[in-house]
Order: sequence, then structure tokens, then C-alpha cells
Amino acid sequence: MRFHTRKWVKPEDLNPNGTLFGGKLLAWIDEEAALYAIIQLENQRIVTKYMSEINFMASARQGDIIEIGIDVVKFGVTSLVLRSEVRNKMTQEKIITVDNITMVSLDGSGKPSAHGKTKIEYVKDRLEKS
Amino acid sequence: MRFHTRKWVKPEDLNPNGTLFGGKLLAWIDEEAALYAIIQLENQRIVTKYMSEINFMASARQGDIIEIGIDVVKFGVTSLVLRSEVRNKMTQEKIITVDNITMVSLDGSGKPSAHGKTKIEYVKDRLEKS
Amino acid sequence: MRFHTRKWVKPEDLNPNGTLFGGKLLAWIDEEAALYAIIQLENQRIVTKYMSEINFMASARQGDIIEIGIDVVKFGVTSLVLRSEVRNKMTQEKIITVDNITMVSLDGSGKPSAHGKTKIEYVKDRLEKS
Amino acid sequence: MRFHTRKWVKPEDLNPNGTLFGGKLLAWIDEEAALYAIIQLENQRIVTKYMSEINFMASARQGDIIEIGIDVVKFGVTSLVLRSEVRNKMTQEKIITVDNITMVSLDGSGKPSAHGKTKIEYVKDRLEKS
Amino acid sequence: MRFHTRKWVKPEDLNPNGTLFGGKLLAWIDEEAALYAIIQLENQRIVTKYMSEINFMASARQGDIIEIGIDVVKFGVTSLVLRSEVRNKMTQEKIITVDNITMVSLDGSGKPSAHGKTKIEYVKDRLEKS
Amino acid sequence: MRFHTRKWVKPEDLNPNGTLFGGKLLAWIDEEAALYAIIQLENQRIVTKYMSEINFMASARQGDIIEIGIDVVKFGVTSLVLRSEVRNKMTQEKIITVDNITMVSLDGSGKPSAHGKTKIEYVKDRLEKS
Repeated sequence: MRFHTRKWVKPEDLNPNGTLFGGKLLAWIDEEAALYAIIQLENQRIVTKYMSEINFMASARQGDIIEIGIDVVKFGVTSLVLRSEVRNKMTQEKIITVDNITMVSLDGSGKPSAHGKTKIEYVKDRLEKS
Repeated sequence: MRFHTRKWVKPEDLNPNGTLFGGKLLAWIDEEAALYAIIQLENQRIVTKYMSEINFMASARQGDIIEIGIDVVKFGVTSLVLRSEVRNKMTQEKIITVDNITMVSLDGSGKPSAHGKTKIEYVKDRLEKS
Repeated sequence: MRFHTRKWVKPEDLNPNGTLFGGKLLAWIDEEAALYAIIQLENQRIVTKYMSEINFMASARQGDIIEIGIDVVKFGVTSLVLRSEVRNKMTQEKIITVDNITMVSLDGSGKPSAHGKTKIEYVKDRLEKS
Repeated sequence: MRFHTRKWVKPEDLNPNGTLFGGKLLAWIDEEAALYAIIQLENQRIVTKYMSEINFMASARQGDIIEIGIDVVKFGVTSLVLRSEVRNKMTQEKIITVDNITMVSLDGSGKPSAHGKTKIEYVKDRLEKS
Repeated sequence: MRFHTRKWVKPEDLNPNGTLFGGKLLAWIDEEAALYAIIQLENQRIVTKYMSEINFMASARQGDIIEIGIDVVKFGVTSLVLRSEVRNKMTQEKIITVDNITMVSLDGSGKPSAHGKTKIEYVKDRLEKS
Repeated sequence: MRFHTRKWVKPEDLNPNGTLFGGKLLAWIDEEAALYAIIQLENQRIVTKYMSEINFMASARQGDIIEIGIDVVKFGVTSLVLRSEVRNKMTQEKIITVDNITMVSLDGSGKPSAHGKTKIEYVKDRLEKS
């Protein structure tokens, strides 16, 4: 799994108990999944369709740095199934895991449409080919 | 299921496709579950421990009004299991459902602790008794 | 008065003295009034025209849960006059009251327009009739 | 009346109709009143106690620049009564007026306390004297 | 240098060390420079093109009031070069200085375009003339 | 240069012209520099001391994905000098560059303190050694 985006836990991210607000964490994961799907499917019209069960394994505190990992589970016809794990950057402790995040590619009218992709591609390779 | 909190979908809540950002919706559900648990368990130290699978059934657009419903599935010893459904207030169309959101009650040192509650209570009744 | 929307007071909602920022509270009331008017008048083009005097009776602290109540004072021709009260969910202590919030219904060109409503309606009843 | 703080109306400040969200405007006024009171009373423990009626006279649109004016109405014993007007910077059109915003000075225990001020002072003069 | 906009440092503006987040400060300066340029150039299509070196001379803490000063360095053909200083309102201590912020005026297609201005103008004078 | 954090440009990130707000971009860079310094210096008490000139080379639009790169220029005694570049993930077009961002390590009393680091370390290696 590749970990890209990092977040610095700031006061605006906390729940009233002073730990990272779970809802904020879910929003961060959803954004990371969406942008990963946009990059892979080369289509900005992407929606989250489904998330499998979510385990909150540990918390994070103000000042912690966390990193969000995304991996591909499967390329469907109109979908891309991802897996995500968030961990504490300094201790590598797992904070949350989601095994299946299904993103769907839409056409201009908002209907699911085949994306034609079957494997992970790197932007660098695409640009060299073009 | 009781629907309390309502949200007016504003530009700041949108994803770049102009529909309600899924991450924002998850954050709203998590907050509603947390405050519902705080009210029922009479303890502000509550954390989200687990969410079962999440189905994104429909989207919402700028200007839509949505309402968030919460129901109790089960009172555990240290936990409270909730169910949530979000729907469009005007059309009653279901937007998202989550069948199991497990909230856990913590003591002052951050450890799960028995909350002693076994059924739904209303604040009004509590205040009349005291 | 019916109390629907609930808020969990988080660090991002505080003023530098560590109590709920008054401006945030006013923004929450305005949003609740706007969405209530949209539901009743079945028109998304609603603006706040007037608020009567506002009494800040008590404050709220981080972790408190507050609920926002709205009641109808009067259906005007192009307006809907509301009353709002915000209270602490757990103690029922009043935090703020506003006796007159005048919302105006606009037409497509932004001019006030008759909304044709004269009494409170419930979305459920509307859907059953249609 | 002196106009200091200016705001550039950005997408995050809009209501779903694409005009400046009234609640945001109220939050801006409250912040401006609070900081004005802190400067005059030389005390950071200030709360908003009361606002008189609020007239929304015009709206603002994305990209507009607005400026917030504050004037002193009266120095009370524990209070400072302010007046505020918000206008469009480019056209000078009035957007909102509030004739009485009562800010109260608190002591360390959160009780109203005499602030000892009777007239407007300028920070520059204070620093020169000290 | 004229100081207009004031900010009250709130919990949402802090970094995890409890002082004003530098990124927030930069965002405030950029907004102030943009709106100053819009006022002077009478054109809403303004972009930041360049900032010279930035010295963070002091920090600010929760509850502090800061004010943002802007001055004109030079009117270019399509640009306006500004200088900014941010200071603590109560102590006048300098927090940050930026000697050159170059704003560029764009035409409808997003290309730099001559703005025709050569000196500072006041909105009041413009309105009296028209 | 390594590019980690990615951002999806959402409506809340735009200036009134519909392009990425420069101030938001500066805040994102400052956060990335801060968390990079925290990771390298193994100290959460880090402040931004200086940024060299900033060139805004291109803009980004709603829906774009951008990535933020950070590189080490130099390990000082109490400082860490970084370089940053932000680019469009899909086209690799450069959006902004900053050649020198000086972060300083503080001790518990807020004074600069020697961090003892002289080269880039990886968290994985640290954890294996310990």
C-alpha cells in the first residue's frame, strides 16, 4: 500500500474530547479515495458508492501526523474498488482500516459508464507515451 | 427512526462535481451519532469504534435540505449500537444508510467503561425526576 | 416549539475565551430559519430580511450539545415570520432567543413573491396527497 | 463610523442561492464587535450580551468586497454598546445595520466586572503614554 | 501604511502548538492583497503572481487581535505591487512583513490586461465624481 | 523531490474568480513544510521562520488534483531549510515554487534549540533500529 497524503492534526480537527474527530477522518479518507480514482480512471466525475465496515483501531491527538494509504482491490467495468488504511506517521500505529471503498465512474449525464481501465497506471508513464 | 438534525447543502459542502461531498456526509453522520450517544449515555467521553457498511444510495445537490435519522440497535455494556439513515427532507428519498454504528463510552483515563444504561431515555423525563 | 437540529460544540466553534462563539450561534440560527422556511414555503429562494432583538442568556462550552427550536409566528403574503430559541440539550437551559425572524420568498428574478401558504404543513402529508 | 475589516465574498461564504449567507454576515459582525470591545476595554474576556433588531437591506454576491463599520453608542459600567453597519466597499450600498450590540466585560470567574473606561481610546496614544 | 482588516485569533486558527498557524496568516495576507487590488484597479479578476520573501518575526496567540496593513509600492501596466505588514493590534509588535506582493489584472479570457491606473484612488472620490 | 500530500480542489478552496485561492495554496504548503520538519526533526514544536520568494506559475481549477513536493535544502543547527513545489497531478504542470522555507525547532519554552539532525531519515529505519 502506498501512503501519500499527510495531515497534521490541528485544533479544528478535534472532537470535544480533544482527540481527532472521527467524522473528519472519514472525510479525509473519502477525499483521498476520490482523488485516487480520478487519477486512475482519468475522469473527474467520480462518486463514492459504497464503503465496507470501518474499524477505528486507535485515535490521534493534536499535533500528530497521520498518513493515508490507498490500494487497488479491483478494477470493475464502471467501478474501481479501493482499500484504505490510515496510520500514525511517527509510530506506524494503525488508526483506521476500510477494506472496500467502491468508487464509480460517471458519464456527463451522471450515469455509471465503463472506464476502460484494467490496471494501475502512473501519470509519468502516460505523459511519456503521449 | 427519529430524524432531528437538518442540513442545508451549501457551496462549501460540495465536491468538485457539484454534488454533496461524501466525506462531509460521513462527518455529519458521525457527529449525529456521537451526540446521540452522549445524550443517551449521559457521558461526554464517547468515541466511534465501528461502522458497518455504508451504502450511498442517492446524492444531494446545492440547496437541498437533508435530515439525519438515528435509531438505537442495542445497548451493550460499554457500547451503544446505533443505526442511521439520511434522507432528502423534501422528497424523503434515502441518501445513505448505515446499519451499525458502535459508539463506546470511556472513563476519565480513556478506557471503555460500563455506562449502566439499558433503554432510551428522554431528557425531559430525567429532568422531571430530578 | 419543535427542536430539530442539534450541534455538538467543537473546538472550531469556540471564541478565544473557550465558550461558544456568538457569531457561530447566529449563523446556526440563520441556517435553521432558512431551511425551515424552504420546507414550509416549498421554495429554495428564501432570504433573511429581518431579525428582532437577540438575547444571549447563557453560554455553551466545548462538548455541550445544543438544540435549535423554530416556531411559526405568522404567514405573510411574501414572508414567513419565525421565532427561535436555542437551548442546552442536557439541562434545557435557554441560551438564546429571537422572537421575530422574517424570511422572504423570492421569485426567479430575486423579487419578493407571494408564496400562497397560510399554515404549517408536513412533508409527509404533502407526499401522501400527491 | 469607522470601517476597518474588509471581506472578499468567496464561494465558501455563499448560501445555496449564490448570495452571501446571512449567517456568515452575522458571524463577521459579531467578531468585529468583539474585537473592537477587546481593544477599547483592554480585556480579552468579552461576551456578546444583546443585539437589537437587524435589517438586511441588500445582499452581496461572490467577488464583492464588503467592509464592516463599528461605532460606540455608550460606555456602560460593565458594558460597551456598539452600533454596526456593513456596506459594499465599491458602491457604498448599505447591506445590514444593527443599532445596538451590547458587549459585556467579564472578570476571571466569568462575572460582569466594571471596565473603568468612559471614552474611545487609541492604541497609539496608550503606547506613547506608557 | 494603512491598517484595515482585523482578525481575532480563534481556536480554529491555531497550529497544534497553540500559536497562530502560519498558513492561516499567509491566507489572510493574500486575501487582503487581493481585495486591495480589486478596489484600486476596479476589476474583480485579479490574481497573485508573486510574493517576495516573508519574515515571520513574532507569533500570535489565541485571543490576540492582529491587523493587516497594505501599502502600494508601484502601479505597473497590468500589475499592482503591494507591501504588507501584519502586527499585533494591542502591542503594535510586528508579526510578519512582505515587501513585494505582485497582483495582476486579468481580462475576461484570463490574460493580463492593462488596468489604466497610476495612483491610489479613494472610493468616496470616485462616487462623488460619477 | 518527493510528492506526498494531494489535494482535490473543491468549491471551498476557490477565490471568487473560480480558480484556486492563492492563500489556500500557501496554507497547504506551510502545513506540508511543518509536518515534514516534525517528521525529520522528531519534534512537534516547529515554527515557520522564513519563506523566500514565491512564484505563482499557473493556477488550478475546481476538480483539479494537485500534489505538494518537499525537498531538504539544508540541515542547520536549530533549523531545517526546505524547498517546495506544487504541481498539477494529471499534467505535471508547475503551479508554484518556493526555494527556501526555513523551519525552526523550539524547546519547551519556545526558544530555538539544536535538533541534532544532519540528514534525511526514514521513519521505517528508525522503528527498525529501536
